[in-house]
Amino acid sequence: MPRFRIDIEYDGGPYFGWQRQANHHSVQAAIETAIAAFSGETVTLFGAGRTDTGVHALAQVAHFDLSRHWTGRTVQNALNAHLAMADETVAIIAAEEVAGDFDARFSAKGRHYLYRIHNRRPPLTVGRVHAWHVAAPLDAEAMHAAAQRLVGTYDFTTFRAAQCQAKSPIKTLERLDVTRDGEMVEIRASARSFLHNQVRSFAGTLKRVGEGGWTAADVTRALEARDRKACGPVAPPHGLYLVKVDY
Amino acid sequence: MPRFRIDIEYDGGPYFGWQRQANHHSVQAAIETAIAAFSGETVTLFGAGRTDTGVHALAQVAHFDLSRHWTGRTVQNALNAHLAMADETVAIIAAEEVAGDFDARFSAKGRHYLYRIHNRRPPLTVGRVHAWHVAAPLDAEAMHAAAQRLVGTYDFTTFRAAQCQAKSPIKTLERLDVTRDGEMVEIRASARSFLHNQVRSFAGTLKRVGEGGWTAADVTRALEARDRKACGPVAPPHGLYLVKVDY
Repeated sequence: MPRFRIDIEYDGGPYFGWQRQANHHSVQAAIETAIAAFSGETVTLFGAGRTDTGVHALAQVAHFDLSRHWTGRTVQNALNAHLAMADETVAIIAAEEVAGDFDARFSAKGRHYLYRIHNRRPPLTVGRVHAWHVAAPLDAEAMHAAAQRLVGTYDFTTFRAAQCQAKSPIKTLERLDVTRDGEMVEIRASARSFLHNQVRSFAGTLKRVGEGGWTAADVTRALEARDRKACGPVAPPHGLYLVKVDY
Repeated sequence: MPRFRIDIEYDGGPYFGWQRQANHHSVQAAIETAIAAFSGETVTLFGAGRTDTGVHALAQVAHFDLSRHWTGRTVQNALNAHLAMADETVAIIAAEEVAGDFDARFSAKGRHYLYRIHNRRPPLTVGRVHAWHVAAPLDAEAMHAAAQRLVGTYDFTTFRAAQCQAKSPIKTLERLDVTRDGEMVEIRASARSFLHNQVRSFAGTLKRVGEGGWTAADVTRALEARDRKACGPVAPPHGLYLVKVDY
C-alpha cells in the first residue's frame, strides 16, 4: 500500500493532546477523520511525537497508508479543506508519498522542541495562549549556563513524568540553549528522543535558576538525585512547541 | 486634578472595539471598570485611536483624571490586577502622571499601524486570529511599489469608511511600507491621523496588487476616483495593530 508522510502544524489549545482517546478530541483523531472524509478509508496515523494536552507543533510528522496513489499536493489540499470545514486548528504544511519502510516515529533521528517564556511584569494579551507568562525578571544567561549541566547522556529520572512509558530513563540530550529576544526567553532542546514531560520539566527548573532561586549546582544536584521530587515545578503546556523532526 | 497617561496592549478579538457602547463590551469600558475598582472614581478614558471591533493594539495611549496622586507603578499594577481578575485581554504596559494639558487624542503627533498578512497556502493554526490568511502568493515588492502611490497629501475618500466622522477626507500619509519576512507580509502605515478604515482599505487594495490583479497605476486611479466603490475589499480587522502613538 502507498505510504504517505505529512508534516503538521497545530495550535494545541483545543485538543487533549496528539493521541486518540475515547472521550476527548485529539489532533490524531482530527486528521484521521479528515483522511477518511477525503479517501473513504479508515486509517491509523502514526506520529513522531505524542504531544500532551495544550502543546503546539510547528512541524509534527506522521505517516499513514492508503490503498491508492495520490500526489502529495492532492493529499495536502484535501486534508486542509476537510480540517478547515471541521474548524480544526490543524494544518498540513507538507505531504508526500514515501517509501514503505518510512516510519514517522521509529525512523526519527532527532526531535527539536521550543519552550517560550514571555517575561514581563504586565499580563499577556496577544499571544497569551502561546507562551508561559513569567512576571519576575529572568536571567537568561544564568539559565543557559545552568542548562549546560543537563546536556549529555544521563539518567533523567528527575525530569520524567510519573506516567512516562519509556523503557529507560537514560537519554542523550544534544542541546539545551536559552536565549533572550526582548521580552521573550526561548529554550531550545534537541535529542533523538525525550521522556514524557522532559522539556517542560527543564523549563520549570530553568525558570527557578532565572529567578535566582537555584544555581547551576542545584541543577546538577537535581539531576543526580534521580528523583522526581527533586525537579522544579513542571512548566505549563501552552509554551511548548514541537518544531522539527529529523530523519 | 492629577492626570494619568497609560499605554495599553490588547487582543481586540473579544471586544466590540475601543469605544464604550451601550450593549457591547469594549476596551474603554474594561479599563474604566478597572479604574473604578482601583480608585473608587468613575472616570472617562480618552484614547489616541478608536480601534474597530477585533483590531489589536501593542501600544494604544489614553489619559484620565483622578482626584489624588498615585505613582505610575501603583496605577499600572492595580489596573493590571483588576483587568486580570476580570479576565480581560488588556494589559497596561506603562503608566505615569502627566501634565494637565496632555491629551492622548489631540496631543498625538503621529500614529503607526501594522497590518499582518500570513501568506501561505495551508490554513493558519497558531496565530490564526492575529493575522489575515491569504492563500494566493503575494508579490510584496509589487505591493510596496504600488503603496508609494499613496504616500503624500491626498483626498483619501476612496479609502474611507462610509461612517467616517472626520471633517475632511484629506490626510497626509507619511509612510506605507510593505515587507516580507518568510510567510509574513507586513504593511506599516504612519500618519498624524487616519480616516476610519483607511489602513484596512489600503491592505485590501494592496493585496489585489500582490495577487497580480491590480497594477500600481490602478491604485493611482482608485485614489484619484475619490469614490468608495473604487477601493479594493476592506481587509479583516484581526490583522490590524495600533503599534505606536507619537507625542
